[in-house]
Amino acid sequence: MPDPPDCGLASSPARWPAVVFQPLGRRVPAAPGSTLMDLARAAGVDLAGPCGGQGLCGKCQVRLDLPDPPPPQPGERAVLGQAAEQGFRLACQTTLPQGGSVWVPFRSRPGRQVILTQGAGAPVELDPAVRCLDLTVPPASLESPTDQGQRLLQELGPHLAGSSAELSLGVLRGLPQALAEQGGRVAAALWQGRRVLDVSPGQGQPCLGLAVDLGTTTVVAYLADLASGAILAVTSAMNPQIAHGEDVVSRIAFAGRDPQNLEALAGLARACVNELAREACAQAGVPPARVLDCVLVGNTAMHHLFLGLDPTGLALAPYAPVTGAGLDLPARQVGLELAGEAALHLPPVKAGFVGSDTVAAALALGAGGLGEPTLILDLGTNGEMVLAAGGRMLCCSAAAGPAFEGGHIAWGMRAATGAVEAVCLGTDLEPSLKVIGGGPPLGLCGSGVVSAVAGLLQAGALNGRGSFVQGLASPRLRPGPRGLEFVLAWAGQTASGQDLVLTAQDVAEVQLAKAAVHAGVAIMLERLGLTRVERALLAGAFGNYLDPGAAGAIGLFPGARAEIITGVGNAAGAGALAALLNRWRRAQAQDLARGLGYLELAACPQFAERFVEGMALPQAGGDG
Amino acid sequence: MPDPPDCGLASSPARWPAVVFQPLGRRVPAAPGSTLMDLARAAGVDLAGPCGGQGLCGKCQVRLDLPDPPPPQPGERAVLGQAAEQGFRLACQTTLPQGGSVWVPFRSRPGRQVILTQGAGAPVELDPAVRCLDLTVPPASLESPTDQGQRLLQELGPHLAGSSAELSLGVLRGLPQALAEQGGRVAAALWQGRRVLDVSPGQGQPCLGLAVDLGTTTVVAYLADLASGAILAVTSAMNPQIAHGEDVVSRIAFAGRDPQNLEALAGLARACVNELAREACAQAGVPPARVLDCVLVGNTAMHHLFLGLDPTGLALAPYAPVTGAGLDLPARQVGLELAGEAALHLPPVKAGFVGSDTVAAALALGAGGLGEPTLILDLGTNGEMVLAAGGRMLCCSAAAGPAFEGGHIAWGMRAATGAVEAVCLGTDLEPSLKVIGGGPPLGLCGSGVVSAVAGLLQAGALNGRGSFVQGLASPRLRPGPRGLEFVLAWAGQTASGQDLVLTAQDVAEVQLAKAAVHAGVAIMLERLGLTRVERALLAGAFGNYLDPGAAGAIGLFPGARAEIITGVGNAAGAGALAALLNRWRRAQAQDLARGLGYLELAACPQFAERFVEGMALPQAGGDG
Repeated sequence: MPDPPDCGLASSPARWPAVVFQPLGRRVPAAPGSTLMDLARAAGVDLAGPCGGQGLCGKCQVRLDLPDPPPPQPGERAVLGQAAEQGFRLACQTTLPQGGSVWVPFRSRPGRQVILTQGAGAPVELDPAVRCLDLTVPPASLESPTDQGQRLLQELGPHLAGSSAELSLGVLRGLPQALAEQGGRVAAALWQGRRVLDVSPGQGQPCLGLAVDLGTTTVVAYLADLASGAILAVTSAMNPQIAHGEDVVSRIAFAGRDPQNLEALAGLARACVNELAREACAQAGVPPARVLDCVLVGNTAMHHLFLGLDPTGLALAPYAPVTGAGLDLPARQVGLELAGEAALHLPPVKAGFVGSDTVAAALALGAGGLGEPTLILDLGTNGEMVLAAGGRMLCCSAAAGPAFEGGHIAWGMRAATGAVEAVCLGTDLEPSLKVIGGGPPLGLCGSGVVSAVAGLLQAGALNGRGSFVQGLASPRLRPGPRGLEFVLAWAGQTASGQDLVLTAQDVAEVQLAKAAVHAGVAIMLERLGLTRVERALLAGAFGNYLDPGAAGAIGLFPGARAEIITGVGNAAGAGALAALLNRWRRAQAQDLARGLGYLELAACPQFAERFVEGMALPQAGGDG
Repeated sequence: MPDPPDCGLASSPARWPAVVFQPLGRRVPAAPGSTLMDLARAAGVDLAGPCGGQGLCGKCQVRLDLPDPPPPQPGERAVLGQAAEQGFRLACQTTLPQGGSVWVPFRSRPGRQVILTQGAGAPVELDPAVRCLDLTVPPASLESPTDQGQRLLQELGPHLAGSSAELSLGVLRGLPQALAEQGGRVAAALWQGRRVLDVSPGQGQPCLGLAVDLGTTTVVAYLADLASGAILAVTSAMNPQIAHGEDVVSRIAFAGRDPQNLEALAGLARACVNELAREACAQAGVPPARVLDCVLVGNTAMHHLFLGLDPTGLALAPYAPVTGAGLDLPARQVGLELAGEAALHLPPVKAGFVGSDTVAAALALGAGGLGEPTLILDLGTNGEMVLAAGGRMLCCSAAAGPAFEGGHIAWGMRAATGAVEAVCLGTDLEPSLKVIGGGPPLGLCGSGVVSAVAGLLQAGALNGRGSFVQGLASPRLRPGPRGLEFVLAWAGQTASGQDLVLTAQDVAEVQLAKAAVHAGVAIMLERLGLTRVERALLAGAFGNYLDPGAAGAIGLFPGARAEIITGVGNAAGAGALAALLNRWRRAQAQDLARGLGYLELAACPQFAERFVEGMALPQAGGDG
């Protein structure tokens, strides 16, 4: 007999009834309210759970070896089917307050897991939307002249989500030939258990997927093997739309001038994705015709331009997208040259300036499950920010301006060879520069500008208002054409043959950029009733280059300090890959986008005040 | 208090408790096992039921005014939602063995009904798959920058099948413009409550659908107003594929010779449907771009050729189709020039020679609900037959050969101007002819040949083996080049200036054709344990021309006699229209095709014997 129920009295783990996981024999106290999934984790028992404990995937089935198992939940019965009668339950939906013995069958052990992000986010369990299955479809007979489609579906039976699946016209057209060629031996690609995407003669063919992060500047494509989860190739290229404007606002303006311009921009983005897919396939030695699934993320403007949706509304208040919904399309419908009927999934976008890249980054970093106040920050001309704390999430977008990308800076440039990416100042104010490519410095990229400002602040050469401190004993601080300037490298050492300087105006540009971010974060904190960020994850290219110390030194956001800041690389790309390798992440992205509160800073009355406050720079010595 | 329960004792209607339908006050005895829907019909109370009593559509809600109403069925609760708590139940799912008062709300009164078939089949309640809705979509604001798609869906809210619906890429591309043009006033077309097909600026626009019967010889298109159910125009044309073969077998052979031939045949059929749609729209004065839904039926070969599916398997045992499933496609995917995102539905096909036209005809004629043994017969080169009795249904296809279409007949021709369509013989064997168009006779179409044989049989001029009786006192019976022949019209009266004759060989051709049909029906009767057909519905063009008396006289099937035979016109077209005007008919067609047993005559060992028996012609006088 199990122990008597808890009765709601105060209890301690030592007095809780035990759950024993078999065949491992691991014993764990049944903490009140904990599901068997929670207890298995606590006991170090691996249990599959690709849907993240939502009770949807049915992969975490365990058998309750009890004389009188609790009845299944209403939704559970549909997932379990016959297994419910044999005592099976979903570990993620079941509590055993009275303890007992639980059998973990072999099939509920998790599959391969893939780690996608640098230093943050949970591993992704492999459960792709598209699965390739080797089948042998028997021929029809006079006694049973079943149609070819039906015979194929019969063989697919156990893999179908319902009793049937959809065969697209393209698949039906190729079906007689595919079945004839090798005596019914075919490889079938099945999407979400509901749609057959491809039937090819022969078996054991590659089953590939492509995850794309379509950035304003850079497009990155990840080619993955959907059968193993292996990443076979990563390719990237500059977004060719750059010919029509460096930033989203100028591309939106170009698109708005003429419907043909919109088509042109869509065509450029699609051609770029096709080129990256071809290149990745060539690197991996696989045919693009075996790429059966694609997930694409981007900011809302890139998303709209890729799909050929009118983006002009994104540049005008209230900045409403045409659609924010997650979309499933035939890849061919937007001109992708993959498998003939390849699927394309676009995760949801949240707002005009919070795109599916931000949603994907939040997904990859597990924002929904973060406890301590965590900021996810992707900085560029536009800063997209998500603040997550204890299951609550807010996001906003701040117009940081071009400083973080080296724009509007006297010697600013993009993060390319010759750009100073970090500046280190000695106590004598003598700088040492870290230059991309290692040669002589040519200019300053975003992280270099921030690093220079941070160094000058820490050396006491800048005050809290961003003014150079008068009377410093350094020849490097001198009057320039527009106020004071600081010489980072003398003409003899630079690639241009001129002095490389940081001007007072440059400092002001950094203050404007960080003030926007600071104000956004401050308002999000207020809305969530918090005072400061406890952890910050810097996503994207800028986050990769930016020194956490410098970000802390300029007070990028309330509570910013080096020890809480981590660069997490291309989290948006990692999120796209996660959605490619695990179909439950798509539903999770949809939930995440729905649960994510959006703050329109332009509509916040306190924005101006917080922006002015955010202009202030922290003082190393406390003065200023 | 209601009466005590029936307790299973023998009871008579007079002793059954009463159900009273309010507000009409109609009272009816609650026959045991009868649903409220059955009782409402018996009481003459009109109740909506577009899904045919399957408990799916939720349109037959009634409120049970009882102190303790029975709980809803499991499936019922999902359909009823909140209404279940207020005492509402689905009339088609509810029995009230103890009687009581039932309130029929206004919303459960049926909508417009349309009668589609001549003399058979139930009227169709209007509930189309595509509905057009006039909406005013409010603009976004900074406080609520909801995307355009979402704002549209919010306005569509009560009309959606779930909480959301899919917006196709084509609709999304046009959305900003459509919303901008008239301040958010738009007409939206919604498919099955799940997909938005069209959003056009302005309101009150026509909402049209097209039903197409794609015959081997003739293509018929019906243009319907989906808002009113009115049929606005009917157009027809010869199937232009005829240039590549008169019958399906020769077209299949042509298609099999080269993939380009298949494309050519598909292109011809599609161009023909486009032309018929344009013509119908021109007649009705409406734009083809407002045709938002299309239902197309045809025999399996026409179905495959229209879709571009390889038909070669249909001509070779085991005659398996590529697919038999009902299909939903974007109409544009098969080149139909209707609304940009118009839907296309193809009802299921049953077998290689039992197409969606037969399924549609059975649907229109209500085959699933027929009690007495009823034969549905569509005769041509191929005879498709459905035998329905008490909810059981069998179908088969018999290769009748070309006689019923005037082929292989000495003076045979198609049913066109100049064709003799009926022959009436006096007792002196002097014939009077009914000629299509009324002019002098040119030849004999199928119904004319059958009519002539029937007349000669009834006059005693033919015996049961199909031989002319020797020694008849008529100058019209004479030796011809290949045995005896009967002169139907002398040279002076014919369009050709030659004698129009029916030869002994012609009689044999009719025997072969009817023997195939007779054998098919005989075997179906055996399988269902029946001896003869009690009612026969002749569908299609041949059925329209054929005199029931002649069909009875030649013994077309076991039990054939004039009084049980009815021509029902284009029942396949009527079925297509029914599926266009009522979406539940699509599910019903799927169920019907599933429930319909298929008999492959080529695999029936008794076929040869039954065929030989079927050659015999009934004798008017009983001799022969």
